[in-house]
Amino acid sequence: MLIVKKFGGSSVANKERIFNVARRCIEEYKEGNDVVVVLSAMGDTTDELIAKAKDINPKAKQREMDMLLTTGEQVSVALMAMAMQSLDVPAVSLNAFQVMMHSTSRYGNARFKRVDTERIMHELDSRKIVIVTGFQGVNKYDDITTLGRGGSDTTAVALAAALHADRCEIFTDVDGVFTADPRVVKNAKKIDVITYDEMLELASLGAKVLHNRSVEMAKKYNVELVVRSSLNRSEGTVVKEASNMEKLLVTGVAADKNTARISVIGVEDKPGIAFQIFDTLAKNNINVDIILQSVGRDGTKDISFTVASDDMEEAIRILEENKTRLTIQKVTWNEDVAKLSVVGAGMMSNPGVAARMFEGLYNCRVNIQMISTSEIRITVLVAKDDIEKAMNAVHDAFAMGD
Amino acid sequence: MLIVKKFGGSSVANKERIFNVARRCIEEYKEGNDVVVVLSAMGDTTDELIAKAKDINPKAKQREMDMLLTTGEQVSVALMAMAMQSLDVPAVSLNAFQVMMHSTSRYGNARFKRVDTERIMHELDSRKIVIVTGFQGVNKYDDITTLGRGGSDTTAVALAAALHADRCEIFTDVDGVFTADPRVVKNAKKIDVITYDEMLELASLGAKVLHNRSVEMAKKYNVELVVRSSLNRSEGTVVKEASNMEKLLVTGVAADKNTARISVIGVEDKPGIAFQIFDTLAKNNINVDIILQSVGRDGTKDISFTVASDDMEEAIRILEENKTRLTIQKVTWNEDVAKLSVVGAGMMSNPGVAARMFEGLYNCRVNIQMISTSEIRITVLVAKDDIEKAMNAVHDAFAMGD
Repeated sequence: MLIVKKFGGSSVANKERIFNVARRCIEEYKEGNDVVVVLSAMGDTTDELIAKAKDINPKAKQREMDMLLTTGEQVSVALMAMAMQSLDVPAVSLNAFQVMMHSTSRYGNARFKRVDTERIMHELDSRKIVIVTGFQGVNKYDDITTLGRGGSDTTAVALAAALHADRCEIFTDVDGVFTADPRVVKNAKKIDVITYDEMLELASLGAKVLHNRSVEMAKKYNVELVVRSSLNRSEGTVVKEASNMEKLLVTGVAADKNTARISVIGVEDKPGIAFQIFDTLAKNNINVDIILQSVGRDGTKDISFTVASDDMEEAIRILEENKTRLTIQKVTWNEDVAKLSVVGAGMMSNPGVAARMFEGLYNCRVNIQMISTSEIRITVLVAKDDIEKAMNAVHDAFAMGD
Repeated sequence: MLIVKKFGGSSVANKERIFNVARRCIEEYKEGNDVVVVLSAMGDTTDELIAKAKDINPKAKQREMDMLLTTGEQVSVALMAMAMQSLDVPAVSLNAFQVMMHSTSRYGNARFKRVDTERIMHELDSRKIVIVTGFQGVNKYDDITTLGRGGSDTTAVALAAALHADRCEIFTDVDGVFTADPRVVKNAKKIDVITYDEMLELASLGAKVLHNRSVEMAKKYNVELVVRSSLNRSEGTVVKEASNMEKLLVTGVAADKNTARISVIGVEDKPGIAFQIFDTLAKNNINVDIILQSVGRDGTKDISFTVASDDMEEAIRILEENKTRLTIQKVTWNEDVAKLSVVGAGMMSNPGVAARMFEGLYNCRVNIQMISTSEIRITVLVAKDDIEKAMNAVHDAFAMGD
C-alpha cells in the first residue's frame, strides 16, 4: 500500500512530538507500506515569521512572504528525516522544488496545477520514507508560492491523487469530525463517515478540521480521506463519496462567529443595481455570504448580506465611496451576529429539516435574522450571544448526540 | 557598473542592521548601478539550527543538515527584499534553486560547478536589486548543498565571476585586512592592497576575514575583491593580482591557536613509511600541516606534524590502531602550541626575512619548536602561552605598525 500521512504544526511542535510522528510512520513502513509524509511548519513558526516580516515591512509583498514562510516547512521535514534516521529508518526530505509541485502564479493563495511524481517514486523505490513540505508550490516563474493557511492538507491530497495512494490520512489534534464543536455541545458525537459535500459545507462553515480546498480536490480525484488524531489510535472520520453510504438527515451542526451583517438601505429598484453592488465588492476581494433583499419605502430596496468580520470595515468603506453610483441612501452594519448551519446529504430529499431547525431555535427563544440554504445545508444568522444556546438546541432537535 | 555585495550574518542580525544594509545597497542602486546582494543567515541562526538538529539526532546526515541550514539564508533574503521594498525600491530575493547555483554533490562541503545568470540578469534588467542566498548550491540530484561555513563569500565571488561584475565587496565587522589581529597587536595597521596569494596564506592561517575558497576562486577568475566594514565608510582592503603592486617584504602576521603537534617516535627508516603514515591520515580526512622529520635512535626516524586541534584525538586513535603496520613505537602529542606566520609576496626575492623573524622571537625569548616555509610565508610553531608576545615581537621586527 502507498499511504500519504499529513501532520499539522502542533503534531511536530517539539522533539517529543516529532519522534511520536516518526514512530507512527515507521510502524506502517515496517509493515511493508510505502509512506509519504506531509508536514506543516512546527508549532507557532509561521506566526513568528509573519511577525518578523510585519516588523520589517507591514505591507510586505506576498511573493517575499511566501519566500519567508516556506522555510518553516523545510525545517520540519529536515528535522523529521533526522528523527527517522536516528531510529535507523532511511528517510529523505523534499521541498516543493525537489518534488516539483507546480502551482498557479498567485502568491499567498496558489493552487496546484500538476505534481511530478518521479522523484518521490524514485525515493520510495529505494525504500525510503519520503517527507514532503506541505503548504508550498513552485509557479511558472520558478518562484515559491504558498497555498494559503491550512494548505498542507491540500498538499497531502494532491500527492495522494498524483501517486494514486491507497489512503490519505490527515492527522490533527482532535479525534475526527464531530456533529458539533465538542467544546460547545457536550454530547457532540464523532462522525464515522461523511461525504465530500457534507465535509465541504462543514469546512466552509468554520469547522476547521480540514482545509476546504483539500476536500474539493479529494472529491475531484476521488481520494478517500481519513481525519484522525495524532495523539491517540482512534479510528477517525472517513470522508468519501456518498454512493454506498446511508444518507443521514443531518450530519453535523456548525457555528461561525467570524461574520458581520451589512445592509445597504434605499437603493433604486432598477435592474443591475444588485449586480453592481456585489461586483464592486468582488473586485475588491470581499467575499459575500448570505444575501437577503427586501422591498424598502418609496419604490427602493434594502439589501443585507454577511461578510467575514475582518472584511467588514473595508466593505463599508468601499460602499461609502461608491454611494452615489450605487444609489445607496445609507449603509448600516452589525458585528454581533453569528452563523449557525446544519449540514446533511439526506436533507435533499427530506423537506422537514428547515422546519425542525426553526422549531428548535424557537423553543429556546433565538431570533433568526437571515436564512440561506443550499441542497445539503441550512444556515441562519442569529445574535452572537445566542450562538452556543442555539447550537445545542439544534443539535438536540436532530438528536445528533444519541 | 554591476556590483556584488556580500554581507555576513552579524550585518543582518536584526531589523536595524537589515535596514542599514538595505540603505547602503540602495545608494549604489540609485547611482544607476546594477546591485546583487549576497546574504548569510541572520546572527546566530545557523548555530541555533545546528543545536536543534543535534538535539534530534547527534549524527544527523549532512544531506538533511543542508536542507535545514539553508532555510537561514532564505529568511535573510526575504526580509531584506521586504526592507528594500518598504523603502520604495524594487527588490527580489532568490535562493539557490531559483538562480541555479550548480554545485558538486558533496553535502556540507560542496563547491560551485557553474552558476546560471539568466534569472539574475532578467531581474537586473527590470531594474530590481537582486538578493541571493549565500552559502548554498544545488547538486545533480536536485538536492540542496552547503559550501561549508563562510561559504557566502564564495557565493559572492562565484556570482561576480559569472556576471562579470565590476566589483565584489565583502562586508564584515572589521575595517579590512590588518597586518596582525588588532586585538592582540595594538599598532596593527589596515592593509590597503594585498595579493590573492598573500590573502590565501593569511586566510588559511586563521585570519578569518575571508573564506579561503572565495579567494582561490577570485584569483582563478580574476575578480577584484574589496573587504570593508558594514559599520562605517572606510575604504577597506583591496585583494587583487600582484602585477601593478609594490611588493611589500612582509604584508601581515597571523597566529593560529587551533593547532596541536603529534609525534610518531621510532618508525623504521625505510622508503614509503612516511607516505603510509600520511596516506592513512588523509584517508580519514585528517589534514596535516607542518611536517618535520628527524633521525631517531638505532636507525629509526621520528616524525612530527601539526593537525587542527579538533582532529587531534581522532588522529592519535588512527595512528594507535595502525601502530604495527606503520612501525610506530610510540605516539606523543602536545596541545599547548600555536602557529605564527609572516606572509609577504616580497619575501620570494629577499633572503633575510626568516632571519629577521627568528631574531625577533629570540629577542623576546620565544622558543621555536618547528619551522615551515612556502614561497611567500614563514610559519613557526611556538608554545601557546608565548603566541601574543611572539606576534607583537615579529610585527615590530618588520616595522609593520609604522
